[in-house]
Amino acid sequence: MTVSYTLEVADARFGGFCKLLLRWKGSIYKLLYKDFLLFCGVYVFFSVFYRFLLSPKQQDLFERIALYCDQFTNTNFIPVLFVLGFYVTLAFNRWWGQYTNFPLPDNLMMVVSGNVHGTDERGRLLRRTLMRYANLSSVLILRSISTRVLKRFPTMEHIVEAGFMTTHELNNFESLHSDFNKYWMPLTWFSNLASRAREEGRVRDDIALRLLMDELNKYRGKCSLLFHYDWISIPLVYTQVVTLAVYSFFAFCVVGRQFLNPEKGYKDHKIDLYVPVFTLLQFFFYAGWLKVGELIINPFGEDDDDFETNQLIDRNIQVSMLAVDDMYQNLAPIEKDKHWE
Amino acid sequence: MTVSYTLEVADARFGGFCKLLLRWKGSIYKLLYKDFLLFCGVYVFFSVFYRFLLSPKQQDLFERIALYCDQFTNTNFIPVLFVLGFYVTLAFNRWWGQYTNFPLPDNLMMVVSGNVHGTDERGRLLRRTLMRYANLSSVLILRSISTRVLKRFPTMEHIVEAGFMTTHELNNFESLHSDFNKYWMPLTWFSNLASRAREEGRVRDDIALRLLMDELNKYRGKCSLLFHYDWISIPLVYTQVVTLAVYSFFAFCVVGRQFLNPEKGYKDHKIDLYVPVFTLLQFFFYAGWLKVGELIINPFGEDDDDFETNQLIDRNIQVSMLAVDDMYQNLAPIEKDKHWE
Amino acid sequence: MTVSYTLEVADARFGGFCKLLLRWKGSIYKLLYKDFLLFCGVYVFFSVFYRFLLSPKQQDLFERIALYCDQFTNTNFIPVLFVLGFYVTLAFNRWWGQYTNFPLPDNLMMVVSGNVHGTDERGRLLRRTLMRYANLSSVLILRSISTRVLKRFPTMEHIVEAGFMTTHELNNFESLHSDFNKYWMPLTWFSNLASRAREEGRVRDDIALRLLMDELNKYRGKCSLLFHYDWISIPLVYTQVVTLAVYSFFAFCVVGRQFLNPEKGYKDHKIDLYVPVFTLLQFFFYAGWLKVGELIINPFGEDDDDFETNQLIDRNIQVSMLAVDDMYQNLAPIEKDKHWE
Amino acid sequence: MTVSYTLEVADARFGGFCKLLLRWKGSIYKLLYKDFLLFCGVYVFFSVFYRFLLSPKQQDLFERIALYCDQFTNTNFIPVLFVLGFYVTLAFNRWWGQYTNFPLPDNLMMVVSGNVHGTDERGRLLRRTLMRYANLSSVLILRSISTRVLKRFPTMEHIVEAGFMTTHELNNFESLHSDFNKYWMPLTWFSNLASRAREEGRVRDDIALRLLMDELNKYRGKCSLLFHYDWISIPLVYTQVVTLAVYSFFAFCVVGRQFLNPEKGYKDHKIDLYVPVFTLLQFFFYAGWLKVGELIINPFGEDDDDFETNQLIDRNIQVSMLAVDDMYQNLAPIEKDKHWE
Amino acid sequence: MTVSYTLEVADARFGGFCKLLLRWKGSIYKLLYKDFLLFCGVYVFFSVFYRFLLSPKQQDLFERIALYCDQFTNTNFIPVLFVLGFYVTLAFNRWWGQYTNFPLPDNLMMVVSGNVHGTDERGRLLRRTLMRYANLSSVLILRSISTRVLKRFPTMEHIVEAGFMTTHELNNFESLHSDFNKYWMPLTWFSNLASRAREEGRVRDDIALRLLMDELNKYRGKCSLLFHYDWISIPLVYTQVVTLAVYSFFAFCVVGRQFLNPEKGYKDHKIDLYVPVFTLLQFFFYAGWLKVGELIINPFGEDDDDFETNQLIDRNIQVSMLAVDDMYQNLAPIEKDKHWE
Repeated sequence: MTVSYTLEVADARFGGFCKLLLRWKGSIYKLLYKDFLLFCGVYVFFSVFYRFLLSPKQQDLFERIALYCDQFTNTNFIPVLFVLGFYVTLAFNRWWGQYTNFPLPDNLMMVVSGNVHGTDERGRLLRRTLMRYANLSSVLILRSISTRVLKRFPTMEHIVEAGFMTTHELNNFESLHSDFNKYWMPLTWFSNLASRAREEGRVRDDIALRLLMDELNKYRGKCSLLFHYDWISIPLVYTQVVTLAVYSFFAFCVVGRQFLNPEKGYKDHKIDLYVPVFTLLQFFFYAGWLKVGELIINPFGEDDDDFETNQLIDRNIQVSMLAVDDMYQNLAPIEKDKHWE
Repeated sequence: MTVSYTLEVADARFGGFCKLLLRWKGSIYKLLYKDFLLFCGVYVFFSVFYRFLLSPKQQDLFERIALYCDQFTNTNFIPVLFVLGFYVTLAFNRWWGQYTNFPLPDNLMMVVSGNVHGTDERGRLLRRTLMRYANLSSVLILRSISTRVLKRFPTMEHIVEAGFMTTHELNNFESLHSDFNKYWMPLTWFSNLASRAREEGRVRDDIALRLLMDELNKYRGKCSLLFHYDWISIPLVYTQVVTLAVYSFFAFCVVGRQFLNPEKGYKDHKIDLYVPVFTLLQFFFYAGWLKVGELIINPFGEDDDDFETNQLIDRNIQVSMLAVDDMYQNLAPIEKDKHWE
Repeated sequence: MTVSYTLEVADARFGGFCKLLLRWKGSIYKLLYKDFLLFCGVYVFFSVFYRFLLSPKQQDLFERIALYCDQFTNTNFIPVLFVLGFYVTLAFNRWWGQYTNFPLPDNLMMVVSGNVHGTDERGRLLRRTLMRYANLSSVLILRSISTRVLKRFPTMEHIVEAGFMTTHELNNFESLHSDFNKYWMPLTWFSNLASRAREEGRVRDDIALRLLMDELNKYRGKCSLLFHYDWISIPLVYTQVVTLAVYSFFAFCVVGRQFLNPEKGYKDHKIDLYVPVFTLLQFFFYAGWLKVGELIINPFGEDDDDFETNQLIDRNIQVSMLAVDDMYQNLAPIEKDKHWE
Repeated sequence: MTVSYTLEVADARFGGFCKLLLRWKGSIYKLLYKDFLLFCGVYVFFSVFYRFLLSPKQQDLFERIALYCDQFTNTNFIPVLFVLGFYVTLAFNRWWGQYTNFPLPDNLMMVVSGNVHGTDERGRLLRRTLMRYANLSSVLILRSISTRVLKRFPTMEHIVEAGFMTTHELNNFESLHSDFNKYWMPLTWFSNLASRAREEGRVRDDIALRLLMDELNKYRGKCSLLFHYDWISIPLVYTQVVTLAVYSFFAFCVVGRQFLNPEKGYKDHKIDLYVPVFTLLQFFFYAGWLKVGELIINPFGEDDDDFETNQLIDRNIQVSMLAVDDMYQNLAPIEKDKHWE
Repeated sequence: MTVSYTLEVADARFGGFCKLLLRWKGSIYKLLYKDFLLFCGVYVFFSVFYRFLLSPKQQDLFERIALYCDQFTNTNFIPVLFVLGFYVTLAFNRWWGQYTNFPLPDNLMMVVSGNVHGTDERGRLLRRTLMRYANLSSVLILRSISTRVLKRFPTMEHIVEAGFMTTHELNNFESLHSDFNKYWMPLTWFSNLASRAREEGRVRDDIALRLLMDELNKYRGKCSLLFHYDWISIPLVYTQVVTLAVYSFFAFCVVGRQFLNPEKGYKDHKIDLYVPVFTLLQFFFYAGWLKVGELIINPFGEDDDDFETNQLIDRNIQVSMLAVDDMYQNLAPIEKDKHWE
């Protein structure tokens, strides 16, 4: 489930974001604790190794290696920060783009409700079927990009069972062979059915039909864009460069950030704190930022903070049906409002 | 209330932004003074602790710890600046996006005024009711995202009382069950009512109806986007990373920026000023920038600088009614203008 | 007047931007010289103070304070550069957004000229009045955001005198009370008048009317956006943070960048040049960049580089009238062009 | 083939991006290994040269040169990182812009299917020909920008053979002479044919024809934008600046990063590791980032990660024909859905 | 001519961008060599001055000045890099915006070809004249912003001669006085002529006329935006700040980067190479980046990499005439395609 926290930070108050730090669900701690433990483990291993297992001469060599490593983790030698900043910004824009292109049937249902007429069974059937086609299409596209939706509808039969499709339609759907995703087929049905409704006079004029087609095209455009966002991701090379930068940074940290014997008077090694507080904090920041990237590069997974696709599918079909069926021409009596005159 | 200051900086003059520094309302001082006092308090505590309560040997240890801490607050070790820059830019874009998507009825009212005809009571009723539905919808959406609006309309009854809804409409509204926000219902009523007005001939042609539907869809799109901005915020993990970075930076500052005994000849500790001017300034900049983030991440709260949602709601219903009722076909006599010929 | 210099840099030539440095109008020198003199004055004061008025022991203290201050102005301790970069980029985007949303009547006038018919007086009257309403609306909005336009039209009577409004219209305008800016009223008149022109048959079909309404809505959208750009500025807190950063940076510079006695052998103080060339250059860059921010945060002031709102208002009304009146159906005879066949 | 990896990173899990590092196809290793070997070769050459071929005096000189070089590779002297960051961000935006402007016939085919009527041969012929023209146009534009597509269709005859064009059409196409790309001609045919279909009554009303023309214009706009993306690239000067920065950085690295004799006590040369781990890592990051730039600056080449233009061409013609021919008015019987009542 | 190089970098290959470095046309070398020689000359002058003309005591002073200068060119004291990065990014966005707003008549000609009917002379005349007006308008706007186009058409007579305008039209054009650019007049003629064609029945219905007007408005919008891009440039102050930063940086370099006598043991002055390789490289990067800015800030000049406005004008009129005249209703016989059944 998407983790919403805007209400808690509605006001910029004393303490501010403090309370956000104490959440577990969708938090950085939950995402990172395993990697953190691994990092600590390796650090402790090297620490013990250096302190107890090496001969003085070996210690000396270790110290020189550690100093060498440290030299590069302290400066901007490995450009972790910069690369991460650019990468996460890119990923974030894609992430928001995917969200805003999630196909919502709200415009379509309003248009269907206002322009496909008839309170009889045929009218209801037309309106419900049109909206069902629109929702079916988004289910088909989401199945191919969201692991959550695929789990819910592992086969086409599950979609039929859930009432998004009839058996006849499934047959029709499967009788056409295409090597590519066929999510656009129900939308073509929509277009054809709207055309037929116009012939039957259920859609009263050409302009209303055009309105239906325009909204349909916008809806299809969003489905299509979602499909392409999934198909064309940030080039693998870019992701690899970023990952390598972060991982190698911390690989050198486990050696370079060891506390060396303060008595040997190495520069910046005046004190032995055992716990490398700063390095651990750095781990939180850098690895945390990389995790942000991992999290948002595919928002259709099953992370705490990924989009609630299944919930959205339910919402969409429910409000679609409400709007075109229950609410069709169901108006409260029009009265003068309070401020009349 | 939004704090507007553009008029004061209309010209780039000598002194420039100076006068902006002397404002209290909506200022950084007002937002930050509590945090600032806390930070000072902790700093003073450690200062007193170090100077008066420790034995010389303990002081020596403290000094080493302070130097160690300082080493990391002086360099870019904790990437506060960079992370903040990216984060605030993101938040700012969302903030402006939310503002420009605030649903304003201006286009809709102009279209209703020009295309729903009749100076009789029925005509007025239709126009007023249509605009009321549009405004009602934005009130419903704002109730769910703005704490200010929720305080104003804690229950649906308050909305009825304020004249945005009749009791019949409320019954109709509540008779339909949906697990999700039903802000779209009044807009479906709008669509149905416009359809009926077309049948009655109040809307004279299909193209005028289409125009009404187009503007309605744009209006609905803005309501919807506002809802989604609220639902899907910047991932919690990102906010946590930024907050942790800033807070831990200052946690180390209270120790690392203590003035150490100048007589001991530590590097960069040649003078004891008691008041860490620079650290306090840094606190202002970094904590201030974080506050900017807090402020704009949810612009529907009750900060000085948050959007004046209630005022906007009042403005919208007022101009809606003026435009479709008082001004309907109320034209001054058309005369030749001054430059005729 | 906007300072245009693109023609001078049409080609990337030897010397390049050199000649741009020699301009006074709209230049950084003109904007900055007062602040610059103030900065120099304070610097000289401290310099004289240090060199001639202090006892050797006081000089010693001053030197330590100066070194302490310098330490923080030389490094990135106060993040002037970074904060300025982000801030100016934000401000620049708003600035360009405001410019591209300046309401120009060109589309509207072309549509009126092509679709509101009649060469008789009534036809001319309709076309001229429609365009006058559109221009009036932009004058009303600009009065509320541009100090230049407000100076030109301090009262509504000035607008009537300038011929944008008749006295009847002014009465009509003032008879409606609203607590908010009423710039949208002339546009509602436009909508109503277009509607009436359709009834009179001056607008020949519904599609032409729709075209008028569409362009009207786009025009209104721009007026509205301009109003909102003015209302909601970059949060005051952000501007304060940036200003504080720059001002405090230079406050420390006047002490920290003093040339200390070279004989005392302080690091980086090997030479006494009296004039702190680099600090003055830095002042130019940082304060200059901040001035860019001040300049563009409100482009409707009276700076050299602000938008020429009054000139644009004149241009708009002039071309509007030319297009719908003089040029109406005034076509040169259609001949075969040169490349016929 | 585009390398898709989003499914593998659907969830932000322990280990995270780890598995992405082990891929070969489309990976940074595949892109970079040759350059890497060359870099290593040169480094080894200088290393051997310094250690074994120079006299002690020459070694001394070499060491001074190396120290001099190192001084500039360690600091931000050559602004590789910054320049790369800006450049790759620019290139990335262009890359995504090109992808989203890839002309897809989906909207067009839906509109043709719903608005060009007739189940007889003439109707099928019209629909199929219209879609063929649209696809032909995109093939013509892609031939001029994609090396893959040019290989597939080296001459116009290949296009005829592949069934995108008839011989008559080819003659017609070649009878018109233009010095510029003629990709727009089939779209003009489309426009003319649609016009004829309207006259024949196959397109039933003017609004349907308008819909066809609107979608055609959007399709043409995408073809056109693709052409211009290819024509106007990032200015050569910019690309040269970036390339020079990266190449010269590494040119100095092969000398400056040599391990100097630790016994001579040069600063930061306390240890001789033979293999310059950090420099190699830096090579990976910087050269890898530059490769990202090379990869995405022209996504119509034959890299692993370039767009699969040929596959898209096949998909487009296939679904076009399916939608307008097989699926025309081929609706499953409309039944009550599961949740009826 | 725009320098196109995308085909050469279609694939990310070994060597990559290498070959781009060897081009002269549109290259950084061509743009920069004069400035480079000047810089070298001044550097050599100071070098000779220091080595041969100064007494030992003067050399000592020079060395101290040089060290002082160097101190500020080595660090980020003068924020050249950062300021350049922001500035070039801004300029690049404007540059691309200008390109994508270049008015192309392709949509308009397709619409004219499909909707203005008649194979007789009157029909041809109407279609050709409409397209001529559109092209004329873009020529007028380009004359005012592009030095190339102004050279080609120094007076209005040249435009008449080139066949874009008849003498009657020129008279008509000049009979109307306006203090502002009159590029919009031919578009008003277009609008009026289209209106007349509708009356004559050449345009068959209102919807087709609306389509013509819509495309006309889009075309005009692009002309207008081009004009405004030229009028409102990046504020002069910003350009001056950037130029001053780069120029002063290099002014200090010619002194600060002199090789000082290695025997005097100044820090980082262990070796005398005579040629300051790094400084020259830096010159290439920074001055090169500034040149990128100069190049793209006005893409309508006569640089190698500027837009080929004259070529585009030729292309536009040529394809316009082809599309509306030669290709009007000139369709190849419609045949079954290869994959029929």
